[in-house]
Amino acid sequence: MNARPNSAPVPAEQVFDWLDAEAARRVEAGLAHRPQPRGATPGELDLAGDDYLGLAKDKRVAGAAAAAALRWGAGSTGSPVNNGSTELHAELEHELARFCGTQAALVFSSGFLANLAAVTALSGGESAIVTDRHLGASLIEGCRLSRADVAAVAHSDTAAIKHALATRRKARALVVTDSVFSVDGHLAPLAELSTACREHGAGLLIDDAHGFGVLGDGGRGAVQAAGLAAEPDVVTTISLAKALGAQGGAVLGPRRVIRQIAETARGFLADTRLAPSSVAAALAALGVLKAEPELPGAVQACAVALAAGLRDGGLSVSSPQAALMSVRAPSAADAANWAARCAEQGVRVGFLRPPSVPDGVSRLRLTVHARLTESNVDTAVKVVSASAPSAATS
Amino acid sequence: MNARPNSAPVPAEQVFDWLDAEAARRVEAGLAHRPQPRGATPGELDLAGDDYLGLAKDKRVAGAAAAAALRWGAGSTGSPVNNGSTELHAELEHELARFCGTQAALVFSSGFLANLAAVTALSGGESAIVTDRHLGASLIEGCRLSRADVAAVAHSDTAAIKHALATRRKARALVVTDSVFSVDGHLAPLAELSTACREHGAGLLIDDAHGFGVLGDGGRGAVQAAGLAAEPDVVTTISLAKALGAQGGAVLGPRRVIRQIAETARGFLADTRLAPSSVAAALAALGVLKAEPELPGAVQACAVALAAGLRDGGLSVSSPQAALMSVRAPSAADAANWAARCAEQGVRVGFLRPPSVPDGVSRLRLTVHARLTESNVDTAVKVVSASAPSAATS
Repeated sequence: MNARPNSAPVPAEQVFDWLDAEAARRVEAGLAHRPQPRGATPGELDLAGDDYLGLAKDKRVAGAAAAAALRWGAGSTGSPVNNGSTELHAELEHELARFCGTQAALVFSSGFLANLAAVTALSGGESAIVTDRHLGASLIEGCRLSRADVAAVAHSDTAAIKHALATRRKARALVVTDSVFSVDGHLAPLAELSTACREHGAGLLIDDAHGFGVLGDGGRGAVQAAGLAAEPDVVTTISLAKALGAQGGAVLGPRRVIRQIAETARGFLADTRLAPSSVAAALAALGVLKAEPELPGAVQACAVALAAGLRDGGLSVSSPQAALMSVRAPSAADAANWAARCAEQGVRVGFLRPPSVPDGVSRLRLTVHARLTESNVDTAVKVVSASAPSAATS
Repeated sequence: MNARPNSAPVPAEQVFDWLDAEAARRVEAGLAHRPQPRGATPGELDLAGDDYLGLAKDKRVAGAAAAAALRWGAGSTGSPVNNGSTELHAELEHELARFCGTQAALVFSSGFLANLAAVTALSGGESAIVTDRHLGASLIEGCRLSRADVAAVAHSDTAAIKHALATRRKARALVVTDSVFSVDGHLAPLAELSTACREHGAGLLIDDAHGFGVLGDGGRGAVQAAGLAAEPDVVTTISLAKALGAQGGAVLGPRRVIRQIAETARGFLADTRLAPSSVAAALAALGVLKAEPELPGAVQACAVALAAGLRDGGLSVSSPQAALMSVRAPSAADAANWAARCAEQGVRVGFLRPPSVPDGVSRLRLTVHARLTESNVDTAVKVVSASAPSAATS
């Protein structure tokens, strides 16, 4: 697009006309659908949300959130440098580090910001970053903010990671990966990646948003399951808003890593700290997880059962290694319409379309949670299969 | 720095050694201090936080947060596309738009992400962005993510903004500014900026984080005070975590702007939605603001009184136009030590040091809130003045 004469005045009401053209393009591509907001006590079966342990409405968790709002106030009232850090934040950080076996932890108002902060604080203009092409959105944004040389290699290809590390032009390097990829629910080869990092002097940053609470001993996550949680060259980010049913995220790792992030990352220093109610909810959920170490296994079994049922119906289902899976759809519009038909029949499922799918294939996205019954799973299989567009079964 | 042989293995425990060197540099530059977390009922006078209307612990606000946690759950359990949007979010969006007089609003889990999303969704590779050099951190990150041509011009210099707009190389343009700059508490010349934008066909994005709830009719903010809230070429971001005492942020503007952000911004689509307790707290705080339209005036008067008292003591104080002001300190270490001496005497103040100060001058940062008494202000003036390093008075 060529520049037009720059100083030409444009009527104020036409300045954002280009947004309508973009919206029309999204409609044409089947990308314009916005899901309806839900009520407080929806009758539908929720296979879209990320409340993997079913703790968001658990009385112990919601009750802790309520009590903390009354005791500490509705907000934290400031950034870390403006008196926003409370003893409650420090307690959650201490408990998360202890549970996962890391030296330290730092809590954020969202997992998105935790990822931005970790990537940017641990790289920079003198670093190379090597990532998997299926990386989650917040890590991609972190890489783009990092000023580092970024190489995004083929999905789950450790040889390509090694090659990129070996041929990098910067001394420092950081490999950035999801533990459980959020499109198909596949596990990254964490042990292999760690070996590759060590051969090439690189740090390893793992987003365990979908593994924490679901994988590892008692839900300690995919990084713990791979034996990497306490390693001096490994950094983990987690979500407080998925398995823990609250809000926010955290970075876990060596003390000096946490210090670097806390003292330099804009996404930490310039953000109001997480509300006390959400901090308390995450703390209470961590307590439930410790008291009920069988919850993560129930989630995994449920995911396997749901995937098997859908596959029996002829659908193209990913092999879930945690709590989420995807089902291929013929097109973006098909995915949205399929999800809408499921909702009409009382089953809420998510859907993924470009640009959220790195391979351009639109999908339904289904999640399970620990409180689903066998009969719930049966219902879900029936509704999703019966609502499928004909081209989805093959 | 030259690249070393890239494949040289480094012992795992040395991979992050460079972080210690960076930490040592921060200690030497007086930039390493981390404030102590506070308790639930601190005895100190809080002149550091951003709870401008004193609503975070208001029973109506904290009570609404508690009730919502019990009714809706501790978390929203998903991103917008994963069933995370509730009718409560939609209600807050409706009420915010109505209060401010805009067509629509979109709520985020943090003001930081609201800014990232607004800047990136309203610009792009075919856009120019023109900003003030004193821009807040989250807007700076948004500009860096935008792929746009970014020109950051001198502080509060509308002629420089015009020149950058006139000489830009892209057809589309967006001027990005804070309404109240967070270092000194000065107002941007919003009416002038709007005129400049119209002369040059540019949109205007204004972060009103420190103006909303404090300026404008009944706290409708600096954008409303400038008569710009309902304009078709103006977009406003606000914080729910400052004057409203809750957590989160929002973008307000024309319907097509909100649609563009909701359908394209990663910082919205890939983020778990704000916890119901925080949504409800913001709604309740908005209700208080409507019921007590005199609160904003009280905050402004309090800020003027505090600044006058400090200036009488010989300190170099900015002229606050909202609820925050700064006091110049001789050095970064002086600022941190000064704040620590104030805290020892029961007054919590914030402090700003490079790189958070665009001119390199370290400062104390003081805020006021609507519930401060005259005697509180007297105490603050006495403690801050008596704790000043001798080089601070001139």
